[in-house]
Amino acid sequence: MSQMKAVQLDDQDRLIIIDQTRLPGQLVFIELDDQGSLLDAIARLKVRGAPAIGIAAAYGVYVLARSYRDLPRPLLLDTLNANIAELRRVRPTAVNLDWALGRMEQTLERCHTLETPQLLAALKAEAAAIDKEDAAISRAIAAFGAPLIHEGMGVLTHCNAGWLATSELGTALAPLYLAQQQGKKFRVYCDETRPLLQGARLTAYELMQAGINTTLICDNMAASLMAAGQVDLIFVGADRVAANGDVANKIGTLSLAINAAHFGIPFYVCAPSSTLDPATPSGAQIVIEQRAAEEVTEAWYRQRMAPEQVQVYNPAFDVTPHQLISGLITEDGIRRFR
Amino acid sequence: MSQMKAVQLDDQDRLIIIDQTRLPGQLVFIELDDQGSLLDAIARLKVRGAPAIGIAAAYGVYVLARSYRDLPRPLLLDTLNANIAELRRVRPTAVNLDWALGRMEQTLERCHTLETPQLLAALKAEAAAIDKEDAAISRAIAAFGAPLIHEGMGVLTHCNAGWLATSELGTALAPLYLAQQQGKKFRVYCDETRPLLQGARLTAYELMQAGINTTLICDNMAASLMAAGQVDLIFVGADRVAANGDVANKIGTLSLAINAAHFGIPFYVCAPSSTLDPATPSGAQIVIEQRAAEEVTEAWYRQRMAPEQVQVYNPAFDVTPHQLISGLITEDGIRRFR
Repeated sequence: MSQMKAVQLDDQDRLIIIDQTRLPGQLVFIELDDQGSLLDAIARLKVRGAPAIGIAAAYGVYVLARSYRDLPRPLLLDTLNANIAELRRVRPTAVNLDWALGRMEQTLERCHTLETPQLLAALKAEAAAIDKEDAAISRAIAAFGAPLIHEGMGVLTHCNAGWLATSELGTALAPLYLAQQQGKKFRVYCDETRPLLQGARLTAYELMQAGINTTLICDNMAASLMAAGQVDLIFVGADRVAANGDVANKIGTLSLAINAAHFGIPFYVCAPSSTLDPATPSGAQIVIEQRAAEEVTEAWYRQRMAPEQVQVYNPAFDVTPHQLISGLITEDGIRRFR
Repeated sequence: MSQMKAVQLDDQDRLIIIDQTRLPGQLVFIELDDQGSLLDAIARLKVRGAPAIGIAAAYGVYVLARSYRDLPRPLLLDTLNANIAELRRVRPTAVNLDWALGRMEQTLERCHTLETPQLLAALKAEAAAIDKEDAAISRAIAAFGAPLIHEGMGVLTHCNAGWLATSELGTALAPLYLAQQQGKKFRVYCDETRPLLQGARLTAYELMQAGINTTLICDNMAASLMAAGQVDLIFVGADRVAANGDVANKIGTLSLAINAAHFGIPFYVCAPSSTLDPATPSGAQIVIEQRAAEEVTEAWYRQRMAPEQVQVYNPAFDVTPHQLISGLITEDGIRRFR
């Protein structure tokens, strides 16, 4: 299992992320030290994956507060709160960004009368707690999910819900890492996940680094593999789970779930329980982020792959009705909505 | 409607194709004048689409025969028959290549005792007949399919089954061109069709040239559009139709058909009746071409998009069971297998 972390506060108290837009070709670490670099990293998916975005934003609030340490207190608070509001709007679908920033806001509210060093310490401690809790959640999800994986199985996953997307281990990939550690032999099929190819670039990279038998497919090949009897189990992550169990996750998840139901293949969603959003009754109320046309027309390396001026539909996520989901695996266990 | 042709014998008797690997950026015409250039063009998808491959191969046999005109007759026949056998193996799934080469072989067999000018004239006439028949078929498919398209509809298509894939008009796109000519207003959603992006590069190009309202999507977004009620009708082509109606077509067709069935959206396959293969009882007997890993890992422009050494599953086609198909639209009308 990799010792690397997608997001970390290093020993010199710098917020360092792996620039995920450079993988798998190059492993590049970058520092986020101001609001501009934070906004840019989140918007351009240098850091991505619902839990990792939350962790980066939480540490980011601490780093920003520290950079404002010499400001008069009211100005420090105003600036920081404006930064938080701006960060929150960058990616609307995943609940974690909003949730982690909410915790930082509460800490700020609770500690705003403290001396600056104590205020900074409280913010740092809260961000570190979010990070550490997420690592524990990943381990719990691994423990609940791994028993579903049996020797010789073909397991399919979509997008990236591994250690690059979380504090460590991941959500959908956590059970795979544990099953691998337990010595089980299985094969993972990994959807490339257009348009941004998180599956090809990130999941294939993670799994191969861990020595897992990995086969890459285009998203539209999953049904053909299922028809050939090669897929026994599906694990995906989630960006937001509505109260009724409908799941918003990376675009393409819905199509997989419908195909899985057609072929009778178990379809599990792995996510921290904080992804459950009781304020959203069903998937119909989840706001789906629409992204730039160029992600589709110019591929990853900005080579034009479609006619100029073509209209593009480019939602980042879709909603999978709870009836299509075998179970939701959180750190609390496996929950069923059907 | 475009006056261009994907494959043509020009007024100087040269076999000219549009190099489809250069679209949509560049419109490049190339001449195929020997066996090497024919094999290369078909293998690398410079010419693609089941009917267009058949037409190119048929004209190719004539062009090859002409280049061998000064050989002793037994050597001419041996060489040509060996060329035909080699061409047949380049792309195994589509029935048209085999079928068109079979017609050329029969012509050769029938006319092999004629003087060379008469033999060449017979081969040229047979290839031209295949071309002309295909154009008539496209017009018939257009006539049967266009009435299914109503004002305001969203029509989804996969891969490219337009004039670039046939003699003219296309199969799945033929009804769209006719409906457009009839003044109907509708919108077409076009799957980009990974790995080779025929939808993004070719279908979007064709439709936009014809002034049709075109929106490009990644393959994995189709279900999300269907869930949003934006897709009223689906038209795809076919490479081979088994006797029971199971359809082999571009990889991703099966997933679309399952999604369409889930949402109750009509799913039509448009193909010449020659695509029906009575010798193949069901989809289970159709040989699916497996293609190179680099098509998936390096995208269209040969930029690496996945880790080195990753295993890849890259079938060119899949099989859609007849139960998922609303109707097969051929030049003989709409046939239903369920």
